[in-house]
Amino acid sequence: MTRFALTLEFDGTGFMGLQRQAHGPSVQQCVEEAVQLVTGEPAVMHAAGRTDAGVHAVGMRAHIDIVKDLTPFRLMEAVNARLRPARIAVIACEVVPDDWHARFSCIGRSYIYRIANRRAPLTLEHGHAWHVHQPLDAEAMHRAAQALVGLHDFTTFRSAHCQSASPLKTLDRLDVARIGDHVQIEAEARSFLHHQVRSMVGCLALVGMGRWREQQVAEALEARDRGALGLNAPPEGLYFMHATYPGEQ
Amino acid sequence: MTRFALTLEFDGTGFMGLQRQAHGPSVQQCVEEAVQLVTGEPAVMHAAGRTDAGVHAVGMRAHIDIVKDLTPFRLMEAVNARLRPARIAVIACEVVPDDWHARFSCIGRSYIYRIANRRAPLTLEHGHAWHVHQPLDAEAMHRAAQALVGLHDFTTFRSAHCQSASPLKTLDRLDVARIGDHVQIEAEARSFLHHQVRSMVGCLALVGMGRWREQQVAEALEARDRGALGLNAPPEGLYFMHATYPGEQ
Repeated sequence: MTRFALTLEFDGTGFMGLQRQAHGPSVQQCVEEAVQLVTGEPAVMHAAGRTDAGVHAVGMRAHIDIVKDLTPFRLMEAVNARLRPARIAVIACEVVPDDWHARFSCIGRSYIYRIANRRAPLTLEHGHAWHVHQPLDAEAMHRAAQALVGLHDFTTFRSAHCQSASPLKTLDRLDVARIGDHVQIEAEARSFLHHQVRSMVGCLALVGMGRWREQQVAEALEARDRGALGLNAPPEGLYFMHATYPGEQ
Repeated sequence: MTRFALTLEFDGTGFMGLQRQAHGPSVQQCVEEAVQLVTGEPAVMHAAGRTDAGVHAVGMRAHIDIVKDLTPFRLMEAVNARLRPARIAVIACEVVPDDWHARFSCIGRSYIYRIANRRAPLTLEHGHAWHVHQPLDAEAMHRAAQALVGLHDFTTFRSAHCQSASPLKTLDRLDVARIGDHVQIEAEARSFLHHQVRSMVGCLALVGMGRWREQQVAEALEARDRGALGLNAPPEGLYFMHATYPGEQ
């Protein structure tokens, strides 16, 4: 048996999310079925994160165990061929030690959230950014975001379906910047709660629109109450960017 | 009657092209129908360029004459509302003099062609870039491209359906650069022949793959024969970027 680490890129549109679901197509199901077609073995994939329906990935990491003798390159090519026409691609593949676990060995995760901030409807970016009509003050959003950085109880920013044992998380970075008519939010942490990034972005957007004072983000955090959440940003603006493992950058 | 200049952004996927076609949906038809719903008047749109099926636009310019009394902002908002769910948006709108013509007054057009140069299938960029598996030598492509810059007979790079009176065109710029795993081609001219950018990109890609010597691009140009064309690049990588008018940048 060999353990392979895969780097996955996918367009989350049309998927029920990364994790296998009874009620619709998932990234996990597509990858597992493609691997099974290549190897003839039952396949189980473990991923660094469990992205929601509509959320995209540029560098999701996952692992899968295979008995059949295959080089990483051959596995990647064959799985990509079997994944078509699903909008999922294996963009890197390597052999890792048997105790390397895509989820449990992961020591860092990063996301980018993209807001297209303009009046006109989206065309080329449809499904790939959150469309916000009202002009956003990105500098105010960035200042307000800093109250969330550090070790906090993120209960306010946690989905009711979150399976994490504790609401305590350390947020390493939450930067907001304007790039032309886009506002981009970058988030980094060892791990995130379910819906945490989208919930944080939703509240920051309220600040950007002037509907919340900057201080209200800190107050929502301190409330430790999901009812204090202002807004959960939609999934289509969210991208899982990168997972970090010991010994990797 | 007031003449309005529109700046259009659209995703060319699923359209038969910009110009009205008997056999399928076009950008022109969608915009004209949307304007007609807003004004109650028959509407005729003229555009700076006639992009093919699958070709995108970031800053296409067009004009339309309207009797009804409307501000540019109100027109833009109302047309965008009527364009949904088509992937076309009016991103700017202004009143122009009656003798301003989107096509005939235009003194400069620019395109970008995007190649995703990697082995893995495209996911997020599907339909928005040309996927080329073989590693491309962008520097060789750029050198070969310079033979096409200037005043030439572009018969080799012209579609059989081209309606231009002459195959003589002055190409002002054709730059090729690598940006990560993408190769981007930028083309500027007063005007282009039908299929000219895609035909030039196709031949440059052959150079990038090492299937053509750099000199063969110049030889194909000198042949003045469509039969000398190596390859016509697919439409999904092409973006109409900008149209220039006297007095504008």
